[in-house]
Amino acid sequence: MAKEEIPVAVIKRLPRYYRFLEELKQKGIVRISSRELSERLGLTASQIRQDFNRYGGFGHQGYGYNVEQLHGEIGAILGLNNRHTAILIGAGNLGRAVANHIFFESRGFELIGIFDRKEALTGQMIKEIPIRHIDGLDEFCRENLPKVAVLCLPEEEAKLLTPGLIGLGIQAFWNFSSYDISMDYPQVAVENVHIGDRLMTLCYKISQE
Amino acid sequence: MAKEEIPVAVIKRLPRYYRFLEELKQKGIVRISSRELSERLGLTASQIRQDFNRYGGFGHQGYGYNVEQLHGEIGAILGLNNRHTAILIGAGNLGRAVANHIFFESRGFELIGIFDRKEALTGQMIKEIPIRHIDGLDEFCRENLPKVAVLCLPEEEAKLLTPGLIGLGIQAFWNFSSYDISMDYPQVAVENVHIGDRLMTLCYKISQE
Repeated sequence: MAKEEIPVAVIKRLPRYYRFLEELKQKGIVRISSRELSERLGLTASQIRQDFNRYGGFGHQGYGYNVEQLHGEIGAILGLNNRHTAILIGAGNLGRAVANHIFFESRGFELIGIFDRKEALTGQMIKEIPIRHIDGLDEFCRENLPKVAVLCLPEEEAKLLTPGLIGLGIQAFWNFSSYDISMDYPQVAVENVHIGDRLMTLCYKISQE
Repeated sequence: MAKEEIPVAVIKRLPRYYRFLEELKQKGIVRISSRELSERLGLTASQIRQDFNRYGGFGHQGYGYNVEQLHGEIGAILGLNNRHTAILIGAGNLGRAVANHIFFESRGFELIGIFDRKEALTGQMIKEIPIRHIDGLDEFCRENLPKVAVLCLPEEEAKLLTPGLIGLGIQAFWNFSSYDISMDYPQVAVENVHIGDRLMTLCYKISQE
């Protein structure tokens, strides 16, 4: 199966499946029917089946899916068993929110360093990780070889830092800035988060009503 | 044209078009060819044409689109000329990041109130809006009739507050919590933001390389 043929829309649905199954698992639910899965996710049963078939299909047995098994299989496709080492740059409100509320460990990552240029923040702890001054970034990267950078920075700062980070071995970016990394560095993996886009979608939904 | 037939994937692309055109406009770019538009957005020219045709098509004239005009037309479809009144609940790191960095005014909204249960925060200002204690929420809503609530709260608190908010006239939610509002209240407009989903997508991208 040629994985590069899988449409972006399908790939984007995988985390949703995973998160939903995670909730079911936490609630102790063992099995879910295709119909309930489709109703709860607002997708047709045939769309879900098609999505799953792209990955070889999963153990659907007429009376439904085994929650734990499906959760594990989708997690494996997403690669969540990995522990990609990550650093977060920018410990303002957004950076703190991300460092505090995102469970990197269950999403395939390990957050090993947090950096900010504000000296007043140096030494403060977020979830047992000390905030370091940005001046120590190069040395930290040479010693610890992080693979991923989470950029919680304004566009200009993100743009200034990116070439250096790539030079230091960063291969993937979780980018909250509006700087378009892929335009300048097509070789690195980038996932952009534009929170404001979803506010426009909400505006659209309200306007349609 | 029956608007309810437009696929979610198309609707979700509109903010991206809008934001990209906004950047071009800010840079003083007057015109863009379909090819450049498609290259920069990573979509095929035919996909973009199809998307635009769903809204009656826009003034493409062989040599490209007029940036300002297209920006205005997509903004009008999104309903960004509105000023839907909004309140934000939860002034922790995430709530502060959202209140500080999101330009509500250019996205169809006006943020008129911020609430938190921490008394130490009461009276602090975020962008000229004072943080109010959550005990004053009902009275504020009855006096100011906000239409939209931005929930920067944990799941349990979001679940507790939602019925009251709907009773007070809230018709739409920008929901950063993991509480599934639509399950319990299918009548209200909801846009969920699951930031962590994009981290899983990044993990998938890294795993594919």
